[in-house]
Amino acid sequence: MKSLKIGILGLGTVGGGTYTILTQNKEIMEKRTGCDIEVVKILDRYKRPGVPEYLYTENPDEILNSPDIDLVVETLGGIEPACSFMLQAMEHGKHVVTANKAAVAANYEKLQETAKKNNVKFLFEASVGGGIPVLTAMQNALEGNYFLEVKGILNGTTNYILTKMTEEGADYADILKDAQQKGFAEADPTADVEGIDVANKLSILIALAFDKYIAPTDIPTTGISKITKADIEEAAAQGCKIKLIAHASLNDDGTIDCHVAPEKLPVAHPLAGVSNEFNAVYITGDMVDEVMFYGKGAGALPTGSAIVGDILSIARA
Amino acid sequence: MKSLKIGILGLGTVGGGTYTILTQNKEIMEKRTGCDIEVVKILDRYKRPGVPEYLYTENPDEILNSPDIDLVVETLGGIEPACSFMLQAMEHGKHVVTANKAAVAANYEKLQETAKKNNVKFLFEASVGGGIPVLTAMQNALEGNYFLEVKGILNGTTNYILTKMTEEGADYADILKDAQQKGFAEADPTADVEGIDVANKLSILIALAFDKYIAPTDIPTTGISKITKADIEEAAAQGCKIKLIAHASLNDDGTIDCHVAPEKLPVAHPLAGVSNEFNAVYITGDMVDEVMFYGKGAGALPTGSAIVGDILSIARA
Repeated sequence: MKSLKIGILGLGTVGGGTYTILTQNKEIMEKRTGCDIEVVKILDRYKRPGVPEYLYTENPDEILNSPDIDLVVETLGGIEPACSFMLQAMEHGKHVVTANKAAVAANYEKLQETAKKNNVKFLFEASVGGGIPVLTAMQNALEGNYFLEVKGILNGTTNYILTKMTEEGADYADILKDAQQKGFAEADPTADVEGIDVANKLSILIALAFDKYIAPTDIPTTGISKITKADIEEAAAQGCKIKLIAHASLNDDGTIDCHVAPEKLPVAHPLAGVSNEFNAVYITGDMVDEVMFYGKGAGALPTGSAIVGDILSIARA
Repeated sequence: MKSLKIGILGLGTVGGGTYTILTQNKEIMEKRTGCDIEVVKILDRYKRPGVPEYLYTENPDEILNSPDIDLVVETLGGIEPACSFMLQAMEHGKHVVTANKAAVAANYEKLQETAKKNNVKFLFEASVGGGIPVLTAMQNALEGNYFLEVKGILNGTTNYILTKMTEEGADYADILKDAQQKGFAEADPTADVEGIDVANKLSILIALAFDKYIAPTDIPTTGISKITKADIEEAAAQGCKIKLIAHASLNDDGTIDCHVAPEKLPVAHPLAGVSNEFNAVYITGDMVDEVMFYGKGAGALPTGSAIVGDILSIARA
């Protein structure tokens, strides 16, 4: 049997979910790919219960430079040192799979070029929409299409807050506090509520849909922190819901319009029905017309499922 | 540049859509796959405007046995001779891509075995959900999951009829007649309205999700022809919509529960928002949790998009 040896950088929420799937579902994955997939090294200081201690290291080079490792999973988060680690792994001939939207969006071209130059795969399905297999679909089943428009709800925290404001008629500040207490929003919620996280994901979607890189900082971005109870009520009176929407479309002259902003959607629009922490991406292709992908945009196992999907596609090839 | 030479069996709606995409989007497909994809032979009696006459033949062997053809697209529809043609093509070492749910569902095991024995690809994304890339997602990005449940709206004609009955408060017979006049329903609508078409698609989904073949004729199937205006009103009073649902789930003992039947769905369920001719498939995996795929379940270009996606995955490999 073929084998694929994996090193994981960071065994936090997403890295831990990936490890769980690779161990719990090992049998079905071997059957489906004909490949033995094994985690042989983990970079982390904190030892997670149930994970053999001998797998751990605190020295990144034991993964990035090791001749025994075929594929590196990057689940550290943050731009650095994650990005440098990914580049180093690829320069040592290792495939890289990541969930890190900030690092991918900030260094998209450099990462893609390095993968190409070293003839390795660089996959990042988990970086947009968590478990939703939208990037894979755009690069495979839908690749006979010219893409015309991409529209999505790409952040679970803000969608949860807007859903609760709509359902409970409550103020933004009260719902945010409640979400923070429940662990659905971070203590510093800026990256989520100001749309920065969404702009990272939209930058990645634009690169795949239109083969054009637009840095997340160049995407006009408005978050939800100024949305009031009155805005939500006004939208409802018009038969609409307010959603934080990432939007990009192709103009006739080949330029791209894009922005992240709260938008009123008619309740009958498929994206208006996406509630709570769910995410969805709505794509228009010249041939397939409209398709939508819906699912959990975050969480250890949904996001781990996307990482494992990328790993299996490399295992198969 | 690599090249892939294609023969198309049947240039009707779906075959014609496939031909249109392969010619109109040739440039982007070459760029994405690095492969020159060319239609070199077409089996059909009727000559379609804009298609060079020299491509046509009325002799299937000029495609099925030709050493110049790498891949056969089967878009004849119906079980025979489509199935025999697909088997013959594979026995001659050709990859096969089809949209034909009736032929695939009736002969699933024979077709898969023949592909395996002859070491060729047999792909059928277009057979379920038209342009929606659900089969590819299940076999690729989601393949780290054990699938637990599959639930779908898989027939555009019946979903159109139920949507109009709900929106207009009209009777089944009146809407069916209207749909027939508009070309949304066939003169003999039995296969659609009695759920036979859906059972074919569910059989294919079950095979992929649970690695188990259940013949469509063994799936308990109820259509929509007995749904009345009163049923729709009763559901609405309970906050529900009636949808024709294909359902399959895995029991703890490894057996499969499955059926096709009209079902009351709460309006907040993502499938309840799928209207008119749209289709959707709702899948639960042990790791990814719930995902839904939504789009056009029929039509020349959406279905052609799925066929072309399969062709491109073969071109790439």
